[in-house]
Amino acid sequence: MPPVMAALAPHLQAGTLVTDGGSTKGDVVSAVRAAFGDKTKQFIPGHPIAGAEKSGVGAAQADLYRHKRVVLTPLPENAAAAVARVRATWEACGAKVSILAADEHDRVFAAVSHLPHLLAFALVHDLAGRDNSDQLFGFAAGGFRDFTRIASSHPEMWRDICLANRAALLTELDAYIAELLKTRVLLASADATGLEGMFATARARRDAWLDTLLPPSGE
Amino acid sequence: MPPVMAALAPHLQAGTLVTDGGSTKGDVVSAVRAAFGDKTKQFIPGHPIAGAEKSGVGAAQADLYRHKRVVLTPLPENAAAAVARVRATWEACGAKVSILAADEHDRVFAAVSHLPHLLAFALVHDLAGRDNSDQLFGFAAGGFRDFTRIASSHPEMWRDICLANRAALLTELDAYIAELLKTRVLLASADATGLEGMFATARARRDAWLDTLLPPSGE
Repeated sequence: MPPVMAALAPHLQAGTLVTDGGSTKGDVVSAVRAAFGDKTKQFIPGHPIAGAEKSGVGAAQADLYRHKRVVLTPLPENAAAAVARVRATWEACGAKVSILAADEHDRVFAAVSHLPHLLAFALVHDLAGRDNSDQLFGFAAGGFRDFTRIASSHPEMWRDICLANRAALLTELDAYIAELLKTRVLLASADATGLEGMFATARARRDAWLDTLLPPSGE
Repeated sequence: MPPVMAALAPHLQAGTLVTDGGSTKGDVVSAVRAAFGDKTKQFIPGHPIAGAEKSGVGAAQADLYRHKRVVLTPLPENAAAAVARVRATWEACGAKVSILAADEHDRVFAAVSHLPHLLAFALVHDLAGRDNSDQLFGFAAGGFRDFTRIASSHPEMWRDICLANRAALLTELDAYIAELLKTRVLLASADATGLEGMFATARARRDAWLDTLLPPSGE
């Protein structure tokens, strides 16, 4: 993106707005500031929360953004009217727009999107390297298929997302490893009440969340 | 199960066979041996690889076992004809039957089913305890929904499965934590090639597996 932005900057008309659809915002904002200089006010960062593990032109969907969330992370330089124009464009595609600060956006998505992708890649990678890998995958079923769906995501894109949001993702990964170590203690000590309590809390939270989802939810 | 089995044993006719549908086999075999004594030969352990995160009578599906795998873990005491009879019963429901040793079964399913359930419960539990939990779930989307589907599974049932297969599950959990620590090194050192290689290996393995799946796969 930086080379594109640098090439674009000199040709940017005063009334033109630029936005993006990247999964991380802190790195994009830094790159745009470097490339756009005092035209940075014409850039309104955005992140549509939609997509799938499939990529390329063949995976295009005309109604991809309908009923999906889009996060805008406006800059202090952005005029309110400029933000409103980008918001209206997304709303015209059927999306529901939210506003977050860029660093808050990156922390939230490290937790609910970037970490799960890393965890799914790690599980499949772990099992793929086993001597009995064919046997293991031979008995994997629907639970495994859904849990690992996002491990079929685009490797280069996810490499870039993980590196762009490295600090927040490391924080989330460490929190998750700590949670797994606590879970390990429950299991190793055969703490039936502790395990059931943890599972029940998780199920109740997830089911409550499902009830709040916009109609058909995408990535 | 032990009390049921103990109550059943005295009434078991010579020509009667008993099987089960539990997700772990080592513990079931031990319980049956204790309850059945020399009638243990009439018990053929089984595990249908089908189901969903929903439970109860309302979640019943008449074609649940069609095109699904069923694992039988016959005992040395079982007559070949007895195993064949249970196999034929499952095949009549449309299932594809495989044979494994009980301990091999428990190791395989610790890796491809029990661990993913534990990991999904752990992620939702971790995020559910955050101060900004509502914000986090508010931006969770389709990738998170599928990754955590199995965290809506039945807490008591999964408590029992985890405890019944505790040793194999601890081995898998430790292997996964080791994998996460290796992933953490790649991320912390911003190893772009290493991350992309890991993601690409995982995606290729998963996609190759998807191509081998029986028609519509369940849990």
